[in-house]
Amino acid sequence: MSVQNWEIRARRAKDILLNSVPKQWILPAHRLPSAHQKNVEDFPRKSGFLSDREVSITEMSATALVAGMGAGLLSAEEVVTAFLKRAVLGHQLLNFATEFMAERAISRAKELDEHFKRTGKLVGPLHGVPISVKEHIEIKGRTCNAGFVAWVDDIANEDALLARYLEKAGAVFHVRTNQPQSLMHLCCDNNLTGPTRNPYNRTLSPGGSSGGEGASMGFKCAALGVGTDIGGSIRAPAGFCGAYGFRPTALRIPATGIKVPGPGQESIHGTAGPLASQSVEDLDLFQRAVIDQEPWETETSLVPLPWRRVKATKDMTMRPPPSPVTRALHHAKQKLLAAGIKVVDWEPYRHDHGWEIISSLYFPDAANSQRTVLSQSGEPLLPLTEWAFAYSRASPLTIPENWALNCQRDAYRDAYHALMKSRGVDFILCPVYVGAAAVTGEAQYWNYTAVWNILDYPGVVFPTGLIVDPALDPVDDGYRPRSEVDARAPIGLQLVGKRFKDEETLAAAGLVSDIVQGKGGDIRCRL
Amino acid sequence: MSVQNWEIRARRAKDILLNSVPKQWILPAHRLPSAHQKNVEDFPRKSGFLSDREVSITEMSATALVAGMGAGLLSAEEVVTAFLKRAVLGHQLLNFATEFMAERAISRAKELDEHFKRTGKLVGPLHGVPISVKEHIEIKGRTCNAGFVAWVDDIANEDALLARYLEKAGAVFHVRTNQPQSLMHLCCDNNLTGPTRNPYNRTLSPGGSSGGEGASMGFKCAALGVGTDIGGSIRAPAGFCGAYGFRPTALRIPATGIKVPGPGQESIHGTAGPLASQSVEDLDLFQRAVIDQEPWETETSLVPLPWRRVKATKDMTMRPPPSPVTRALHHAKQKLLAAGIKVVDWEPYRHDHGWEIISSLYFPDAANSQRTVLSQSGEPLLPLTEWAFAYSRASPLTIPENWALNCQRDAYRDAYHALMKSRGVDFILCPVYVGAAAVTGEAQYWNYTAVWNILDYPGVVFPTGLIVDPALDPVDDGYRPRSEVDARAPIGLQLVGKRFKDEETLAAAGLVSDIVQGKGGDIRCRL
Repeated sequence: MSVQNWEIRARRAKDILLNSVPKQWILPAHRLPSAHQKNVEDFPRKSGFLSDREVSITEMSATALVAGMGAGLLSAEEVVTAFLKRAVLGHQLLNFATEFMAERAISRAKELDEHFKRTGKLVGPLHGVPISVKEHIEIKGRTCNAGFVAWVDDIANEDALLARYLEKAGAVFHVRTNQPQSLMHLCCDNNLTGPTRNPYNRTLSPGGSSGGEGASMGFKCAALGVGTDIGGSIRAPAGFCGAYGFRPTALRIPATGIKVPGPGQESIHGTAGPLASQSVEDLDLFQRAVIDQEPWETETSLVPLPWRRVKATKDMTMRPPPSPVTRALHHAKQKLLAAGIKVVDWEPYRHDHGWEIISSLYFPDAANSQRTVLSQSGEPLLPLTEWAFAYSRASPLTIPENWALNCQRDAYRDAYHALMKSRGVDFILCPVYVGAAAVTGEAQYWNYTAVWNILDYPGVVFPTGLIVDPALDPVDDGYRPRSEVDARAPIGLQLVGKRFKDEETLAAAGLVSDIVQGKGGDIRCRL
Repeated sequence: MSVQNWEIRARRAKDILLNSVPKQWILPAHRLPSAHQKNVEDFPRKSGFLSDREVSITEMSATALVAGMGAGLLSAEEVVTAFLKRAVLGHQLLNFATEFMAERAISRAKELDEHFKRTGKLVGPLHGVPISVKEHIEIKGRTCNAGFVAWVDDIANEDALLARYLEKAGAVFHVRTNQPQSLMHLCCDNNLTGPTRNPYNRTLSPGGSSGGEGASMGFKCAALGVGTDIGGSIRAPAGFCGAYGFRPTALRIPATGIKVPGPGQESIHGTAGPLASQSVEDLDLFQRAVIDQEPWETETSLVPLPWRRVKATKDMTMRPPPSPVTRALHHAKQKLLAAGIKVVDWEPYRHDHGWEIISSLYFPDAANSQRTVLSQSGEPLLPLTEWAFAYSRASPLTIPENWALNCQRDAYRDAYHALMKSRGVDFILCPVYVGAAAVTGEAQYWNYTAVWNILDYPGVVFPTGLIVDPALDPVDDGYRPRSEVDARAPIGLQLVGKRFKDEETLAAAGLVSDIVQGKGGDIRCRL
């Protein structure tokens, strides 16, 4: 079989990746777990490759890292070095990176240490925090392919605006992460650097489209990560990989310099947001660090809402999903009731209608924007790309058809909000996905997350502390058996709040995740 | 010439109007000024038809009216009666109404008086304030034609959401007002109830599309009015008629129940906003009364920004426009400098580019939405409708073409904002129009207002107190002579501020208009 032209171009992405991996931290193949070993999440502790201090550092929250640096107990350089070592290991096992930026990271960390030594002060709320960044968020002077072979040589003129704010707040970028072809899979495979794996079970998907970020968080290759979400692309990876993730309400986090096909589409706004390996608190830290800098002063399409400091309230509601997530929800409900939280059952309100609208709005141009970029290189369409494009109509919508869908969207939003208000419901606790995690290449149940995109509700994913257990999670009638593939997968849940109630939703998720995980209470299920 | 089918349908709008005019207040034709008399603005005082008290009441600001009612010095009933009388007179002279609602208004006023008598309290910040409302803002049980003959029998199921908030705050709706065919003229003529006239010069246009509101304010038929603006439709009528008008940043004032062709268009958001006959303070009162009710709790697409209470700052800038507005700007500049305001000159930044974008986005479907409604009745297109539609391309934009324009729009907004910031400019003082007011049927210079729509900047129009004087306003070379038609027209100016700085812009406009009009200072130019 002859090598195709697109393969030659695609090889460039692999070259960039391979050349960027810091050689000194690559573990020889014979010291790695066997390719048959599914769960590699605990390998950093067992490998002996990281020192105890490095293991501890990489398992601290961003908040704790900043506190440690502020107290002079940690240096930014040793922190980023520890995360770089863990990230290299993670990449060997999970193929989650598209490019390491070790030199930039270490040089930045040294600057931060220098600043702290000179002034006794941190540069900002993210001082010295290593953050992994999804590849389609542009980094100056580096290529940005957004998962398309055609864009493999496109070089960014400057850092994406979000990256600039994060760096100004003290963040250190050490690794860029993988995404699927077209950016529209809940999985993470492409024709450039190939599929990323789930650290809890390498036959499973890490979720998508921010799948590299999911793996990064699940393996603790960074304390925080930056993903983007238009249908679940932050939340699914967080849920699949036992991590935390937050999709903010649209138009609060800057989008300038985040590369997508068909920019200017406004019917369903995608948004960037944080993933975290350790806590909801870190998600809040990320939001605060960005929004306190008033990004609307540069990207004027953002809404000028300051980041409010709020406390958690105790009113919320939940709805029952399919097994094995049912058990996690039931578990959560009992814990919440015991903690004095008001819980009422919630029947999904026309979620099928929501899916009808949003699936029509994902590709109003019949996915021609995406198909054009794909055809420019001639790379083949992956099955999940075909599957996603099948939601677009055969021919493009007309502009008035698009307008009509905008009206349906707004009417649905108003009705959903009115129903929640009339029932006194502030938050909805719900699944992230039909099961705990999908097999690689099979993630097709978008609407557990996408319904909140059509509603533009902020959503937080957190691990419950439970993991799938075939004995406890019997297969339902009429439910496609998943027990094998779900086995050993962490079970995450999603808490959503009302539009623009981002701060309240994060505060509530902090409280709920603590209660559900049994923190400060009777049980620590995992960790 | 045979009567066309559309004329029969259109007659229904005239019937509704004629049947609604309170007969008891119609002035016999022989007591009206001659049809040749251009300026009728002072007729209410001279006619003897209104008592001195009624003249005084109708020349009070909304703020003062509410204070008077709160002090028990005025009743809502006498207030609305006075305004109804003046509005009937105004309608006889200017043809500004589409429907009077005297019964509803008086009955509501009596309820308010009853409430005040019983409780000693006002129902809200607009207690008893008569407000005129542009016709395409729906009123329950009444027709809503939005200027189209085809819609002459469409009956609204409920009040527009904005009307509900205003009424809850205490407003009394007594008259609905005229608008042009297609809603897309800066004039005010249609095939239903015909052209509205400018009270300062009846050969001139009252502006548009909220032209009925312009006339209502100029003649003081209401203390406040509700218009809508997607290219100048609040500001031009305010400017042409010597009144005050405010176009808020989009997505702050509810749009539910405001009828337009092609709803769901989001590239350029239209927005409702207030006009006032007396003061900038009343514009702020209107915004506060609506936004304090948190309209985003019902119309969830609104931005949840509370209405902030701010004080005026003293930094602003201005730019020179063509004569005779040049004189007004020069006058304003001298006054502002004398008052200690920092003023710098401002060259328009790519306003032609802004117009290119916005004019392409007004009719991305090649105006098919509008043409369809027009063809449903067979009514002929008015010249200004043809003129406006000429800005739409021959064929509809594709969705990706629309997206590309959205990106251009956002880039232009970011660049404009960055430029203002780099020069330390908070506000721009500029013309409303190329001249003081246009001749009926000739208003074609949208971009003095529309550039601020593409930028989504809030803008306030206020009268300078100056009127056109052919001796002082010589005709420039290369400038189409307007001295004859401008003669005796009031000269308004526009103050715009940055996106979402609505509160600051109104506060600054209050200060600037006081200084320019010489209030609290040496000169009272008019009033």
